[in-house]
Amino acid sequence: MRTVDLIYRKREGEELSPEEIRFLVEGYTSGQIPDYQMSALLMAVMWRGLERQELAALTDAMIASGQRLNFEGWTTPRIDKHSTGGVGDKVSLVLAPLVAACGVAVPMMSGRGLGHTGGTLDKLEAIPGFRTDLSLPEAKAQLQKLGVVLIGQTPEIAPADKRLYALRDVTGTVAAIPLISASIMSKKLAEGLTGLVLDVKHGGGAFLPETEQGLELARTMIALGEDRGCPTVALLTAMDRPLGRACGNALETEEAILALRGEGPEDLLEVTYALGVEMLLMAKIEKTPAKARQRLENALSSGMAAEKFEQVIEAQGGNPKVVEDPSVMPQAQAVEVYSARQTGVVTRVEPRPIGRAIVAMGGGRTTVEDTVDPSVGFVITVKPGDKVLAGEPIASVFAKDAAGVELAFEALTAAITIGDRLQEKPLPLVSHRVNRDGVEPLGPGAKKSGREAATGSRKG
Amino acid sequence: MRTVDLIYRKREGEELSPEEIRFLVEGYTSGQIPDYQMSALLMAVMWRGLERQELAALTDAMIASGQRLNFEGWTTPRIDKHSTGGVGDKVSLVLAPLVAACGVAVPMMSGRGLGHTGGTLDKLEAIPGFRTDLSLPEAKAQLQKLGVVLIGQTPEIAPADKRLYALRDVTGTVAAIPLISASIMSKKLAEGLTGLVLDVKHGGGAFLPETEQGLELARTMIALGEDRGCPTVALLTAMDRPLGRACGNALETEEAILALRGEGPEDLLEVTYALGVEMLLMAKIEKTPAKARQRLENALSSGMAAEKFEQVIEAQGGNPKVVEDPSVMPQAQAVEVYSARQTGVVTRVEPRPIGRAIVAMGGGRTTVEDTVDPSVGFVITVKPGDKVLAGEPIASVFAKDAAGVELAFEALTAAITIGDRLQEKPLPLVSHRVNRDGVEPLGPGAKKSGREAATGSRKG
Repeated sequence: MRTVDLIYRKREGEELSPEEIRFLVEGYTSGQIPDYQMSALLMAVMWRGLERQELAALTDAMIASGQRLNFEGWTTPRIDKHSTGGVGDKVSLVLAPLVAACGVAVPMMSGRGLGHTGGTLDKLEAIPGFRTDLSLPEAKAQLQKLGVVLIGQTPEIAPADKRLYALRDVTGTVAAIPLISASIMSKKLAEGLTGLVLDVKHGGGAFLPETEQGLELARTMIALGEDRGCPTVALLTAMDRPLGRACGNALETEEAILALRGEGPEDLLEVTYALGVEMLLMAKIEKTPAKARQRLENALSSGMAAEKFEQVIEAQGGNPKVVEDPSVMPQAQAVEVYSARQTGVVTRVEPRPIGRAIVAMGGGRTTVEDTVDPSVGFVITVKPGDKVLAGEPIASVFAKDAAGVELAFEALTAAITIGDRLQEKPLPLVSHRVNRDGVEPLGPGAKKSGREAATGSRKG
Repeated sequence: MRTVDLIYRKREGEELSPEEIRFLVEGYTSGQIPDYQMSALLMAVMWRGLERQELAALTDAMIASGQRLNFEGWTTPRIDKHSTGGVGDKVSLVLAPLVAACGVAVPMMSGRGLGHTGGTLDKLEAIPGFRTDLSLPEAKAQLQKLGVVLIGQTPEIAPADKRLYALRDVTGTVAAIPLISASIMSKKLAEGLTGLVLDVKHGGGAFLPETEQGLELARTMIALGEDRGCPTVALLTAMDRPLGRACGNALETEEAILALRGEGPEDLLEVTYALGVEMLLMAKIEKTPAKARQRLENALSSGMAAEKFEQVIEAQGGNPKVVEDPSVMPQAQAVEVYSARQTGVVTRVEPRPIGRAIVAMGGGRTTVEDTVDPSVGFVITVKPGDKVLAGEPIASVFAKDAAGVELAFEALTAAITIGDRLQEKPLPLVSHRVNRDGVEPLGPGAKKSGREAATGSRKG
């Protein structure tokens, strides 16, 4: 088998056999197939796509490149959540301890920020001392003890994905649905889950902005999960504006803590509840969405969820005081208030300029090796549809210096549009529920309430 | 400028600016852009194509990566011929000395065989001692003295093309019309020509088998040449069967010598004359195709062309005796006759199985570093349309050993089809003439006579 012939055939739109896909993944992981052949193949895959059998073989080969977690003898359901990434998306920090507090084991393996999107690991590491690089045995022990662990991809899990992802990132081959699906699902399926909930973002700030692309991605990942014995459900959630108010690592962690204390922004809590309901139902902790939602709300209002987060922080070497006093996290030197440029209605808050500005201000990564300044970012207090007066404060920027503030102000001017009235309706917070049976659009109620959305999804 | 952003934009089908194209070529040539990014970009170019401005910028950047030959003060017209490659295509060996004998300077820079096609350099090197690696000053001195030099691409000429070609070869990105055009034209335009004639092959044995593809390639290269002040004409010639009878390095060189002595096969001579007519007209040595043809025929029948080849061989270190006695070239150890398997009409002689068999027998290359055994190959004495009797000898195979003979027989069985009657008309030897004014199909007369074809092209 010659790699160049396989590239040629994929380029011509032909289907490769499972043996050929395996040959490519194994050859690449072992270093026998060079980067320059793999990147040409990846671009051909972007062009021609992958058939279902090819995608299954790719995912299996990527799982087989590493270890699978073994939970033999465990009876606790193990459910993870994965988000396709966005701006201001700190859901994991709230959801993992919240769901764990309800009795579900959450072995959450997250990523770092790349491109314009943030990463859960970077947000956690804003907490002084917090370690995300636990070994697999450490992670397993903590999962057994606390019911939740928040770590990065370990070297044992799907190493082929790690190499492929790094290559895709520098060769313009990230945004292909089959490649995204195989990357996410190979890691998740190696975690030994009993179920998986996917938060698929759509809207301008998502990697795949179009709703149709989001739905296809959801369907593709669900098929991969279900075919491999892992029940999988996806919710499509809004990323046409940032989620919550805070964007930037420490600021988002602070907002997540506020949410765990019951003081979080409504949109963040609604998305968190909607995903949490799916996790509790999947774990069979509750039988109806309404009861699941009630249990989640109780876990939050009772302080159990916040306490669980405190325990996780302590167990992973972080300063647990952060839960009571978020100011133990690094603070930005230059803080300025940004005011509305005119009177009118906020028509857009574009996530991408915000995400890119955070990177430019030192709070994100352009390569995986970059270190981040956790203190920088934005708190944007308006949403599309809000009325504002010229000169009214609508955001705060947190920067290292005056140059950072200038950059941040420019980004806000690019991101926030004020007009006479809304041109386009913002996306519902949770717009679709997808499972192996198909896609269910969630009614306009979904915009207001995750509970109704989740309930509606059973009724519809 | 970030390379990944340029890859991304090309992937999305956007046009890159001349500055961006230059950045990519310069960065790749200097080693700042790694192979894995360039190969992804090349695959994106295969997918999305290149706009005329992009292609022009690519070609210019490739020329600018090296030196341009400077012929200031020369008055002799300098015309080269380039073939897109095929099986049995030894035209250059006949054409270069023939046209030089008519007073045109021919600075011919050729390539090695790759894939299923042979290469002029490998054919020349079948002559004991023949050097194709002259330096540029040596080549220029010989061109001035003899009017013809036959060399390989020197390191000074379009080094970007050399690196890009090697990468394309292993990443399935060879057969893109803009990439082929830029590769060929960057080298040719650096030669300081006063005119260029292109032999664009079509049919199953060509890199681009479809006639439409061949025409597009011709038009693309002509636009590149003419826009840069180099008059360029293309002929589309048949590669649905091998050209001539001999396939394999020493065997083809022998056949070229026979042709120079007036004993060559008719199809080889017709294609050679058709191309030669274009070169003489372009050089303004003659004013009409008929006169140009006459001059070429005279140069051949008078022995001047053969003598010119002898001088070239001697000047480039080869054994000039080869012109009188081709058996000074390496001889195959195992020679066997292949007979028709049945009585009927030869319906096909497919070039690809023949070309691939030569490679497998050791007479071609799978990597540029491979050395070749010049002695192996085929002499196939039938053409599509010929009637044969079962058991009648229709080919000879020249191999290193019995295993090679077996391989060669299998290839002949795959390549030669015998049926009741021709299913498909063979392509005319010269089917189209293309210049900056457009495409001229050449009538059925073209099949029989290159002169009529060339003449017709002026009439039509």
